[in-house]
Amino acid sequence: MRPVAAGRTITRNTPDTSSMALIVQKYGGTSVGSVDRIENVAKKVIGYRGQGHDVVVVVSAMSGETDRLIGLAKAIDPRPNPRELDVLISTGEQVTIALLCMALEKHGQPARSYTGAQVRILTDSAFTKARILAIDGENIRSDLAQGRVVVVAGFQGVDEDNNITTLGRGGSDTTGVALAAALKADECQIFTDVDGVYTTDPRIEPRARRLDRITFEEMLEMASLGSKVLQIRSVEFAGKYNVPLRVLSTFQEGNGTLITLEDENMEAALISGIAFSKDEAQITVTGVPDRPGIAFGILGAVSDANIEVDMIVQNIGRDGTTDFTFTVHRNDFERALEIVQGKAVELGAREVNGDRKIVKVSLVGVGMRSHAGIASRMFQALAREGINIRMISTSEIKISVVIDEKYLELGVRTLHEAFQLDQAPAA
Amino acid sequence: MRPVAAGRTITRNTPDTSSMALIVQKYGGTSVGSVDRIENVAKKVIGYRGQGHDVVVVVSAMSGETDRLIGLAKAIDPRPNPRELDVLISTGEQVTIALLCMALEKHGQPARSYTGAQVRILTDSAFTKARILAIDGENIRSDLAQGRVVVVAGFQGVDEDNNITTLGRGGSDTTGVALAAALKADECQIFTDVDGVYTTDPRIEPRARRLDRITFEEMLEMASLGSKVLQIRSVEFAGKYNVPLRVLSTFQEGNGTLITLEDENMEAALISGIAFSKDEAQITVTGVPDRPGIAFGILGAVSDANIEVDMIVQNIGRDGTTDFTFTVHRNDFERALEIVQGKAVELGAREVNGDRKIVKVSLVGVGMRSHAGIASRMFQALAREGINIRMISTSEIKISVVIDEKYLELGVRTLHEAFQLDQAPAA
Repeated sequence: MRPVAAGRTITRNTPDTSSMALIVQKYGGTSVGSVDRIENVAKKVIGYRGQGHDVVVVVSAMSGETDRLIGLAKAIDPRPNPRELDVLISTGEQVTIALLCMALEKHGQPARSYTGAQVRILTDSAFTKARILAIDGENIRSDLAQGRVVVVAGFQGVDEDNNITTLGRGGSDTTGVALAAALKADECQIFTDVDGVYTTDPRIEPRARRLDRITFEEMLEMASLGSKVLQIRSVEFAGKYNVPLRVLSTFQEGNGTLITLEDENMEAALISGIAFSKDEAQITVTGVPDRPGIAFGILGAVSDANIEVDMIVQNIGRDGTTDFTFTVHRNDFERALEIVQGKAVELGAREVNGDRKIVKVSLVGVGMRSHAGIASRMFQALAREGINIRMISTSEIKISVVIDEKYLELGVRTLHEAFQLDQAPAA
Repeated sequence: MRPVAAGRTITRNTPDTSSMALIVQKYGGTSVGSVDRIENVAKKVIGYRGQGHDVVVVVSAMSGETDRLIGLAKAIDPRPNPRELDVLISTGEQVTIALLCMALEKHGQPARSYTGAQVRILTDSAFTKARILAIDGENIRSDLAQGRVVVVAGFQGVDEDNNITTLGRGGSDTTGVALAAALKADECQIFTDVDGVYTTDPRIEPRARRLDRITFEEMLEMASLGSKVLQIRSVEFAGKYNVPLRVLSTFQEGNGTLITLEDENMEAALISGIAFSKDEAQITVTGVPDRPGIAFGILGAVSDANIEVDMIVQNIGRDGTTDFTFTVHRNDFERALEIVQGKAVELGAREVNGDRKIVKVSLVGVGMRSHAGIASRMFQALAREGINIRMISTSEIKISVVIDEKYLELGVRTLHEAFQLDQAPAA
């Protein structure tokens, strides 16, 4: 995963919803989980039409439907043929597009549904995890010009040979963003069951504040650090094609959070949010002979076992030896520890320690690029509460620390207060 | 409905299942009504493959699925948009093709599913009751050549603009026959829950015998007279394109009934079967002034009300007046009676009588073409049992009589015995 390039030209500010625009809206499985909810979505869409906007809607399968279909498949074969699995589960979204169009038509709003094949959303042939290659927007444009709402099945496409494909987890978000890019839409709105992106998880810090805006890069960091509002792939895609992305709630009114390119409005905020990850575990090798190839010697074996490594820290050596620490997903901890223990003997290291009870807490914000002192302010705040930092890792717009699991809530709240995230930044 | 032209060249006899053939098999909703039943169908198909045949399978939606989908649609709109209704209900067959292919693949039989759009089954744009215009068999042939079983979604197609269409009731049978015609298959096998076509309904005459063969024309007469084994459209289609059609049971072994062109083997049987219809009602206008335009005067008004008229009988006039009798569907009886009563006054007729409690019993057989005396033998047998005949109507291969409803069972059994239908005809 690569964040989008920084410092690009600013092209858009707050979308002017008073003028006519082309909006792509994506509604997830919960939003269309029943006939009543589908009618509710129809009313929302008609509301946007009433404001003069052209609307393309992307929908997921009704919640529970994909699981029901997978259940049928698994009853026949625990490892069903992937091509046929895609033929099967793509029916879930096809049901939703038809029902939503019926609801729109019933209320007098002309509408037309499209399967992935009908749009033509061309993908590669990687069944169950296909990637979009191209989208033909011709028919959709023609329908919009005739005043229709266009409803597209998310999560699906066809390959060159007209085989039905699906895009894998979060695929409907990707469909929405890809369609918005292909149609040069003014905004891609992702309707979900949360009303936006927050400075941190409100379950941990009740004073967490909904962000009006966040950059693609920040969103990518937040997403990769466990904020599950949007799928990483769709944010990457939106950033790559510069599609303004807005996260809104299907069930509450509000403007949600706009995810867009960095602009001057954002400079005021040093830090946009605090993300955290509870899924990690730490492995430390101490007293490793400090010579070239050590990192590879240890991590090569781990990566050969298909275990992904997240943070890696190596301090400057002392007395000809060095300490080497890295984190892995908690599920891979035992396996990784075993591999490293074998390697340590081979490399003549002194000791291998592991700890499952750690968490990673990160400050994310494009503002830290131009401001020194963020890190020291962070470390000071944590020290004041007696929270020991085990590891530190930084990127251009992120500072992550690994701390004891027991300090997660305290750490998040301390940093939230230290950086005054409960208050909107001065414009 | 037009029966196929008589006297065509005989092209096929009993199919030689010991040599390799191309077979199109259609399995209905009950046959694929559960995961277990789908596995059972997979085993049957693999059995046919084992005999060296190429097999194309057409499937319906799992039983209950189409009704479930229609229920969702009606919950949104009692009269849902027809285009979207087709998008919705076509998912039923799509689920089945995927599951059947998974089952085949699990047992090591390479298989590939096709939706109507993927085959490309081109239809007109009459949503919910489309007609097939053309079928592209190229991909299917290529798959068969590679040893695959091809599984096609019945009941569905696409129009010229790639809109999904469905074929209406019994559409999967039509898909099967149309595919067999397009692929020049050796036989189209319709698997159902009965094991063939019988000389009459076994619930009325336990000695009813399964026919080994029957002609398209006879089958059309039987179907139109209430023997619901096959949809009339698929039989017409099979006759038109000379596709041998076989009705078999999914759940029992056996050769079923072959529906084919007339051939010399059939000459031995005068009568193939006895069909009957309990859905009719009779209306008689007596004492109508016998002058040109009378029939139109009465029936024109009925047909203007979109009421279908079945049998029509008018006797030679007497004393300048005539009696005019016809039958309509029992559901239309009251409405038709009212219309005719109005007309009768206008035309100066003496009286209008109606009777709901009538049935139509018909002898069907291509053999009667060349044999005189069938009618008199029929009338004699009925008279011997004291069954009064109210109306008589004949076609080239059918004699129908209308009798009191209470005589239905007695009439059918009497005729079954009179024409010795419980015994196979001498070859």
